[in-house]
Formats: sequence, C-alpha cells, structure tokens
Amino acid sequence: MIYITRRERFSAAHRMFREDWTDEKNQDLYGNCSNPNWHGHNYELFVTVKGSINPETGYLVNLKDLSRLLQNAVIEKMDHKNLNIEVDFLKGKILTSENIAIAIWHELNFGIQSLGAELHCVKIIETENNYVEYFGN
Amino acid sequence: MIYITRRERFSAAHRMFREDWTDEKNQDLYGNCSNPNWHGHNYELFVTVKGSINPETGYLVNLKDLSRLLQNAVIEKMDHKNLNIEVDFLKGKILTSENIAIAIWHELNFGIQSLGAELHCVKIIETENNYVEYFGN
Amino acid sequence: MIYITRRERFSAAHRMFREDWTDEKNQDLYGNCSNPNWHGHNYELFVTVKGSINPETGYLVNLKDLSRLLQNAVIEKMDHKNLNIEVDFLKGKILTSENIAIAIWHELNFGIQSLGAELHCVKIIETENNYVEYFGN
Amino acid sequence: MIYITRRERFSAAHRMFREDWTDEKNQDLYGNCSNPNWHGHNYELFVTVKGSINPETGYLVNLKDLSRLLQNAVIEKMDHKNLNIEVDFLKGKILTSENIAIAIWHELNFGIQSLGAELHCVKIIETENNYVEYFGN
Amino acid sequence: MIYITRRERFSAAHRMFREDWTDEKNQDLYGNCSNPNWHGHNYELFVTVKGSINPETGYLVNLKDLSRLLQNAVIEKMDHKNLNIEVDFLKGKILTSENIAIAIWHELNFGIQSLGAELHCVKIIETENNYVEYFGN
Amino acid sequence: MIYITRRERFSAAHRMFREDWTDEKNQDLYGNCSNPNWHGHNYELFVTVKGSINPETGYLVNLKDLSRLLQNAVIEKMDHKNLNIEVDFLKGKILTSENIAIAIWHELNFGIQSLGAELHCVKIIETENNYVEYFGN
Repeated sequence: MIYITRRERFSAAHRMFREDWTDEKNQDLYGNCSNPNWHGHNYELFVTVKGSINPETGYLVNLKDLSRLLQNAVIEKMDHKNLNIEVDFLKGKILTSENIAIAIWHELNFGIQSLGAELHCVKIIETENNYVEYFGN
Repeated sequence: MIYITRRERFSAAHRMFREDWTDEKNQDLYGNCSNPNWHGHNYELFVTVKGSINPETGYLVNLKDLSRLLQNAVIEKMDHKNLNIEVDFLKGKILTSENIAIAIWHELNFGIQSLGAELHCVKIIETENNYVEYFGN
Repeated sequence: MIYITRRERFSAAHRMFREDWTDEKNQDLYGNCSNPNWHGHNYELFVTVKGSINPETGYLVNLKDLSRLLQNAVIEKMDHKNLNIEVDFLKGKILTSENIAIAIWHELNFGIQSLGAELHCVKIIETENNYVEYFGN
Repeated sequence: MIYITRRERFSAAHRMFREDWTDEKNQDLYGNCSNPNWHGHNYELFVTVKGSINPETGYLVNLKDLSRLLQNAVIEKMDHKNLNIEVDFLKGKILTSENIAIAIWHELNFGIQSLGAELHCVKIIETENNYVEYFGN
Repeated sequence: MIYITRRERFSAAHRMFREDWTDEKNQDLYGNCSNPNWHGHNYELFVTVKGSINPETGYLVNLKDLSRLLQNAVIEKMDHKNLNIEVDFLKGKILTSENIAIAIWHELNFGIQSLGAELHCVKIIETENNYVEYFGN
Repeated sequence: MIYITRRERFSAAHRMFREDWTDEKNQDLYGNCSNPNWHGHNYELFVTVKGSINPETGYLVNLKDLSRLLQNAVIEKMDHKNLNIEVDFLKGKILTSENIAIAIWHELNFGIQSLGAELHCVKIIETENNYVEYFGN
C-alpha cells in the first residue's frame, strides 16, 4: 500500500450564511465570513489516493491522469468562480471548509476508483492558519 | 538607512472589468478574472519602510505602530470585503494588482511619515506565482 | 468524522538539561541545546481536532472558539516566555519537543471536549527540519 | 507513543524508463520524465519514527543520531548522484517516487530499530505539487 | 513605474565542469556538482519586468502574455532537460547559476520589450539556501 | 554585475531592554520582548554579495567559501546562544533586528571583500511577518 498526494489550487469567492437566518444571526456566527458582498480565498486542495504499485509501470497512478481528473471534476468548476452561485455540487450547502471538503470527496470518489486507486483524504487549506481533512467517514 | 518590512494579509473578493466594455471584451482581456459573480484571493501585503535608527530605542519604527497603521488604514477596509464595491479608495478603479498596490501606497504614505519613516515599497502577492511592487514613482 | 487543524505560533527561550547531571553530561547529550544562558525558537503549534459536523452551522467547531482556547490555554503562557522558568505546566520537565507536545495535549484536552470536538493531534515544529506529533497515547 | 519527523534533502538526476520498452512506449507512459539525457530534482525526504519517550533523557531518539543515520544510509548515497546509475539500492528499479520511497524504507528500517524506535513513514516530495508516502506495508 | 514578477519552475539535470580541466581539478573546484553522471534540481525562475501601467487596461503587461513568453522562450527548452547537452543557449557555458541567469536574461530581453515592458531582474533559485539575481549590467 | 544570496539560520535567545530604564519603561516600549527571563527566535540570515563573474570558474564566489565565512564569522557565535550575554560583537547594543543586521554587516564586510566580492545586503527575518534589511549606509 502506497499513498500519493496531488496538490491543485483554485481561487474563488464565497459567503457563509443561512438564508433562513437574519443578517444579525449570520454575522454573529460567521463574522465577516458572512459579508453579503462576498469575500474570497486562494484555496489549496490536496488529494491523497492509496493502493498498490503496478509492477509494470512503477506507478500507483499516473499523476497526469490524477491531475486531469482533479482539473475536470473539481478545479475547472471552482476556479475563479462564486462557490455559492456557480458550483452545482455545492448548491444549497453552508460553505464551510468542512462541507466543501466532503462535497469534493463525493465528486472524486468514483473517478479515482476508475484510475485503479482508492481515495484516502481530501484536504482543503483556506489560509496558512487552518485546514480541514476528510477521510470518507 | 535601514529597511523594515511588515507583512499583513487579507482575503477579498474582486472582479476585473470595465463597465464601458461588453462582457465579451472584458472576458477577452481579463479572462476568468472578469467573472460577473466575483472570485477571490488570499492577498499578502508587504510594506517596506526606510529611515535611520532612533539611537535611544534601537528601532526605526516600533512594529506595533506600523502594524496598527496597516490594520487601520488598509486591512480592516479590505479583509473579507468585496474590493469593487466596499473599499472607498478603490472605487472606480480597474482592480488589477498594479492599481491595488498604487492605491495602498497613497493610503499609507502620510501615516508612515508620521511614524518618522519613509515609505519605500508596497508589494502585493496575489498567488504564489506572481506579485507586484510599487516604489512611489 | 471530519478533522480540522489550527496553527498558532509562539517564540520562547528554553534550555534542555537535567539538574542532577553535570554540565559535561548535559553538554554530551543535549549539545548546544543545554547552553546555560538559554537559546530560543519560533515554534509552530498545529492542533488537530475531530468530530462530526453540526448540521445547523456547517462547522465542526467555530475556529474563533478553537483559536481563543489555544491562545488562553497555551500561547499566552508560552509566547515570549522562558519555558523552563515561567510556564507552570512545564515545571520540572526536560524540555524536549516530545515533552512539550505531551504537556500541551493535557492542557488542551478538556477544553476541546467542551467545544464539542475531540483532540486528535498536537504537532510542534521547532525548525523546518524536524517536528513532533502526539496522538494521546 | 510519540512521533518524530526529520527532514533531509538531496538533489539528483534520474530518468524513468524500462529498458525492455521502445523509446516511444517509454515516452508515451512517462512523458518528458523519460528524457534519455536525464533530468533532475531537489528531493525532500521526511522520515517519521515512533516509540516511547526515554524518561531519563526526554527523547524518543536523539535527532543527531537520526540525522546521522539518514545521512549515512541515504543522503550521501543519493545527493548529487544519478539515481539510475550510481545508487546501489535502486539498481534495476523503475525510479518512480513510489519505488524510491519503498527502497529508502528498506535501507532505514533496521538502523532505526537500533536507535530504539520504529520506522513509521517515509515521505518523498519531488515537487511542491506532489508527494508519496510509504508506511511499510 | 510599476514592477511585476512572474514565477515559473523547471526541473533539469546539469553538471558543472570544464572540459579542459582534469577530473581532479573539476572535483576540487565544483565538488559533487561536477559528478560525471549528472545531478539535478527543481529550479525556480522569477522574472521581474517594469514599466508604466496602461490606463486602458490597468495592466503593465497581461500576465498570460508574460507567462506564455517565459514558457516558450525558456521553460519548454529547459524543463526535464539536460542543461549541458540539450539547451541551445547554454551550449559551451559553465553551468553555474550565475551563467544560467545571464543566459536567460538574453533569451527574454527582446520578447519583454515587445510586450511593452522592460526586463528588470532574472532570479534563479537553485535550493532554498541560495539564489542568484541579474539586473542586466 | 551579478548578485548572489546565501541563507543561513540560527536560533538564539535575546531580550530587548535598556539597563538605564525602569522595568516599566522597558515593558512600555518593548512589550513582552523585554521579558527579563529571555525569549527566543529562529532567525534566518540572508546575505547578498555582488561583483563580476570569474570567467575561468563561472562563479562570482564559491558558495562553499561564502557559507564557511558566514558560519565562522556569524553563525557559530550566535546559534543556540544568548545574544545579550554571549556574542562579543553585540555587547552593549539594544538588540532590535535593526541593530543585529548592522552588527552582522560589520562582521562580514572585510571577509567578503577577501573573497573577491562586495557585500550588498544583510537581511534578518525574525518571524514570517517582519524582516529588516541593511545595505551599508
């Protein structure tokens, strides 16, 4: 069993809030992250997959294939986008890093299996001071 | 003459576009940075000041004072904000990093003189692959 | 189950030595880390907590609460301090990174439970070339 | 149980290819990494060991001993070398990061036991966008 | 006058030596950097250009154009290549970072003028412990 | 004219205070940096030298010689030391980063000339949020 991690990056706008709450309640819980005019981040996404090495190639997966999957399934949909409005698989969710990581896991899970590996971890770094990891359960 | 640099960070949403241009022309020049639904970044701001050391204190400037100035004059106005809509000193500008750096220079210049130093450089890092520097002329 | 990690930093002086050993024996084992006149580091502390997401807020824990806990329970007691002399929960310990990580674990464990999460890992980075992790047992 | 990680770095040339394949087939799978004239990287090696703290010293292992082991068993053999030609324990292997990590594991495993610790993880960072981890099985 | 810096990266093999010197003399001066079997690095290239902002676009230069120039004129020729053998503009040079930086300057100078800017600095980072800068004279 | 920069690191304890001031006045100006029990930092030192390339070797200076000079003249005297008590060339100074940078400049200036280069800049990074640069006048 070997583990490989690929980093991709995206920049996006978002806002944390619940429509059924007042502005005051949103502000109280989410602080300036609930700014109605949006704010944004440079996100780093680290995706770790695991499995056994193909003895013929020496690869667990070809990183070009893994990178292409991440680009198609996640980055192109999120980069320079408004996460609340423009990303289908985030619709209706409260856009904490926790929920973003879990949503990305579900977008990637089958594609990574089709590459012959198993998804191990989705890690989202929002700032240099905090990150979230999801291991699938 | 000694040089001191202080880093502050802010996260913000923005959009690059000209109102007098069509969406196509904006898209053509600014690419996905002109996304009408905004996108965002974690910005790093490095401000370099210069001057002579105060022999009584060993300081050029007290970093607490410099940091407070940067917070009051720039960071509180930009962090978790929409740069196009909510920042008075950016109103009406095309929000390239070039223009943001110059605008921040003018916000800081007098305040730094009042600390007994001279503003030397405003540097804006938008992503790990590019940054802009302005030296005042 | 989701994992969230928060980084805090502190700068401190310390010295590694045993009072019941001669200076030679201390120097032999701890090298220049046993310098009687102290030395110091910029430490990075990464605290990882785990638990389930609160469906109402989308948070595992509010990072403001987690950061405040780390500040109150650890950073304010250690930052710009002498770890051997001024930190109550380190008194009488040999101040290797191993022992510092375990001591911080015990300072944080109950507070993190009171935030509704479980402490998963305390990681201490002393230099860019080495770090220590403690998982509670 | 405590975990300690030590970083060492090395720069080396390598090439990914199978002698029994045509240049086209190698190029097809390994891309420009199969360049017959070699290419190279600055590798970062992170080795994590685990075990219990020696109560007499406060150490799991003395980092000087761990660093010396890594230097002698791995770095001196790999730094500024051609991995395909000059490294005995890599002879005949396809030099993916996966295979390099596993080979380093076997070079280090007994030496780390002789330091009184257990090898937990070998991590190889080839570029800032990808890394490989091996946990021994 | 504003300054913009773009980072690009490449990985390459190289060797420092003079053909008219003995192996001993090369080894004596260049150490393990003269290894006849090559070694390699992940290089970071920072290119700084300067000029005045185009008031119509808010740009000094469009970063897409600058990046494309760097890719075409430098990165595609150097990435995953053997610098001594495969790079036309480095032929016959001693491949210290000093000489590499100056050679890249001359490859880029006219192209950057054709973008409407002036080349200010070429910076080459070979390892995290040293870098070289060239300002054109 | 080419510029080369070498990084070295050291960890040290220090305290900022004036003996002729009361504890209150020191605390007022220097905050927790005047803690009588010391505190410490991991410092990064970047030394930039300039000059012309030796056409015979392709070097401005041999980095091994530059590194040895920095080690002998600065790092061995400061690493794991108490800067106020144990470093001869800092005796009697207020140990702000400003004064440390200038003192290091004077320690290095002649030695770098004897390597055939000219000292251009001494840069001291105390934390990731601030640094000081001195250019010699």
